[in-house]
Amino acid sequence: MNADPSPSYSTTARIEAPLSASLLGDLSRTIGAVGAAVVGIDLIEATTTGARVDVTFNAVDEAHVASVRDALTQAGYLIRSVSDRTFLAHLGGSIEVVPRMRLRTRDQLSLIYTPGVARVASEIAANPKAAWNLTMKGNTVGVVTNGTAVLGLGHIGPLGALPVMEGKAAIFKTFGGLNAIPLCISETDVDRFVDIVAACANGFGGINLEDISAPTCFEIERRLQERLTIPVFHDDQHGTAVVVLAALMNACAITSRSLTSIRVVVIGVGAAGSAISKILLNAGVTNLVPVDRDGPMHAGMTLAPHHEEIVKRSTAMAYASLEDAVKGADVIVGVSRRGNWDPKIVKTMAQSPIVFALANPDPEVMPEELDPGVLLATGRSDLPNQVNNALCFPGLFKGALEARATRISDEMLVAAAKAIAATVSDAERAIGVIVPSIFDADVHSAVANAVKGAWSA
Amino acid sequence: MNADPSPSYSTTARIEAPLSASLLGDLSRTIGAVGAAVVGIDLIEATTTGARVDVTFNAVDEAHVASVRDALTQAGYLIRSVSDRTFLAHLGGSIEVVPRMRLRTRDQLSLIYTPGVARVASEIAANPKAAWNLTMKGNTVGVVTNGTAVLGLGHIGPLGALPVMEGKAAIFKTFGGLNAIPLCISETDVDRFVDIVAACANGFGGINLEDISAPTCFEIERRLQERLTIPVFHDDQHGTAVVVLAALMNACAITSRSLTSIRVVVIGVGAAGSAISKILLNAGVTNLVPVDRDGPMHAGMTLAPHHEEIVKRSTAMAYASLEDAVKGADVIVGVSRRGNWDPKIVKTMAQSPIVFALANPDPEVMPEELDPGVLLATGRSDLPNQVNNALCFPGLFKGALEARATRISDEMLVAAAKAIAATVSDAERAIGVIVPSIFDADVHSAVANAVKGAWSA
Repeated sequence: MNADPSPSYSTTARIEAPLSASLLGDLSRTIGAVGAAVVGIDLIEATTTGARVDVTFNAVDEAHVASVRDALTQAGYLIRSVSDRTFLAHLGGSIEVVPRMRLRTRDQLSLIYTPGVARVASEIAANPKAAWNLTMKGNTVGVVTNGTAVLGLGHIGPLGALPVMEGKAAIFKTFGGLNAIPLCISETDVDRFVDIVAACANGFGGINLEDISAPTCFEIERRLQERLTIPVFHDDQHGTAVVVLAALMNACAITSRSLTSIRVVVIGVGAAGSAISKILLNAGVTNLVPVDRDGPMHAGMTLAPHHEEIVKRSTAMAYASLEDAVKGADVIVGVSRRGNWDPKIVKTMAQSPIVFALANPDPEVMPEELDPGVLLATGRSDLPNQVNNALCFPGLFKGALEARATRISDEMLVAAAKAIAATVSDAERAIGVIVPSIFDADVHSAVANAVKGAWSA
Repeated sequence: MNADPSPSYSTTARIEAPLSASLLGDLSRTIGAVGAAVVGIDLIEATTTGARVDVTFNAVDEAHVASVRDALTQAGYLIRSVSDRTFLAHLGGSIEVVPRMRLRTRDQLSLIYTPGVARVASEIAANPKAAWNLTMKGNTVGVVTNGTAVLGLGHIGPLGALPVMEGKAAIFKTFGGLNAIPLCISETDVDRFVDIVAACANGFGGINLEDISAPTCFEIERRLQERLTIPVFHDDQHGTAVVVLAALMNACAITSRSLTSIRVVVIGVGAAGSAISKILLNAGVTNLVPVDRDGPMHAGMTLAPHHEEIVKRSTAMAYASLEDAVKGADVIVGVSRRGNWDPKIVKTMAQSPIVFALANPDPEVMPEELDPGVLLATGRSDLPNQVNNALCFPGLFKGALEARATRISDEMLVAAAKAIAATVSDAERAIGVIVPSIFDADVHSAVANAVKGAWSA
């Protein structure tokens, strides 16, 4: 699947070789010949005896990097070092905690720390609401995990999750202007995890739960939200759901559909699939078929509570099989794994079908497996229509914190989705452009404003 | 006590008045006449009808600020607004969390977050030690409190402690180059507090306990250190102790004493007093008299374990009273409260006495209450010889983290003190110069190197 060289396997090799006029070109060709993509080449030093060159290339995976090394060695180059740019980017961590005011004089110190800070502390002790203005609380989100479901890697534990939480924090600041504090907690028991997070929440204006496995993620979120008066938001569920709804709104606009008249088949009804189903129903979809490994769900079955809620609200008929449900359907939302369903079933869908293949890192279906004219969205950054949670969470929290919201309501989620969808103008909207780029500064402020406006206590 | 205007009551008033050549001078005089110190005056706008002026002054306390307002009003000035610079400095918090690499392209995002970060997470899951390099852990300290003993304010709770932890974090970065993450925990039970901190410690290379009341602070520190393989350090105890030892070394040098031959009376043997007593005994002091509200302690008494340990290691005789213990003593270290002992007893000490009056915010004795020639150190930034923990903790943690130390040993504490003391050169050392300024960049790197060198597993 992962056939193209990508920047996540970006590598810099330091080479020594006899100096020649064709050195840089030869190096480039040697690397290109084994399928890696040279993205930079720098002559570091040249003497009469030889040259040192840094050459940076993207590879497909670690085995591919090794084959580039072999090719260079066989071509007679001396490899001094090979450094992996991904690992380099994470050396020392991807975020840092810095003072907002440079401390250069005793006077500044006495404002920020003792004795001045004692007055601020006293004020907050007397009037706890003052902490929203007089501390970082009002613009800070706790990014909290126990490492039970990290990316596509599974239960790798809280320490392995730390670089992911740091990256998330970098995104929170870059796009939402918010501080995010990673909290990687060694606790899988729901009761104790909830107790710990609740006890640590003082400094946070909101909590972003992250990479917590189903089904405990449902209960953790529900119980934390009951205990706390700040928003608690499991991004893997609701962040994904918001961006899916946004993308679907624009997909419908392009294919002249309306949410109220489409049939949506959601394949995979875990944490993300359930949240997607709910937001679609909240936004106007009526005909929604949830499908898990046992096939399509319907009212006649015994269902888990979070599935039952979805089935109850849908007008969909009872289908006998996944294939039945998909036949003539307008939309597939896949949130399972590649291989769980056959890409060929897309051919049985309605005309101009919409397929969201959100499995990570390998989508359930790739563009080359589909007929032209199928509108495809995935989670991948190297394909069009990336369903990227980072379109949602920075602005969503910014809006919620500015509103001093005590929770994230269904209305706020739908408002966020509409704001994301509307950031793609009528002129821009196309079969490969149903969501904005996360580097579009407008989207994050639009989401923040929409969410703030949708909050009502 | 707090008789001098200080920057912690720094206030800016915006004034409107008819324009005149003497306006700024008149304003200054009006404010100076009620005892406040004008530190800045800016003409913001002047028209034919009048002028707007921002005047910044330091006051003694809030009542004093009110009296300045009254004086301005009575003198005919229109006050548009009055803003408190301490509160302004804390608006939105005094620290922020920022990415170390600007995220401007999709390539950068794919290194820091998905898909690249998955490789870093996998590496750490396979090899947890890699987190020291590949995340912020190796240069990050958790600054942890439950708000039970915040500054001199007592048990004001974890939210009230937040601005103090933020200020501490600002100092950690400024002087130690370390990230510090405030964790303000709603939990006073020792067992549960220890469980929570231990569960949250994954992302930290060390833990700075802060503003936790005695006696639970002893047990919390001991048990956390037993559970964790990173240094756990209660700064209110050991940070103070380190700086006291450093200051005492230089005080002895000036007064031609040696640690081994002096009698030290420690008045107040709570968390800080106990830690001070221990480090002094570790550094060579033999004759040390701990005194609490029941008077001098000695071997014939029933004592708490942490007191018994101190008494056992001291060669001091049994004194009948505080006055007896102080009579002829070389050093008083006061860590109690103003009013607990009479400054007059200093007159009964040995020649060239050394007095550390560390009660906060009001020292047990002020310079004007002492004869000339008494060497006085306090916790105040507006007096000479400030015993300031910030001389210790940034460098101490930097050294400990660089050494990958698993705890802070007694040797590391003494090494830190010696490094601080040695930063004051023979030429600089004087009765009013026994500790360096915390803005002396040398002190923090000297402490770090000394602590790193003193670590042995």
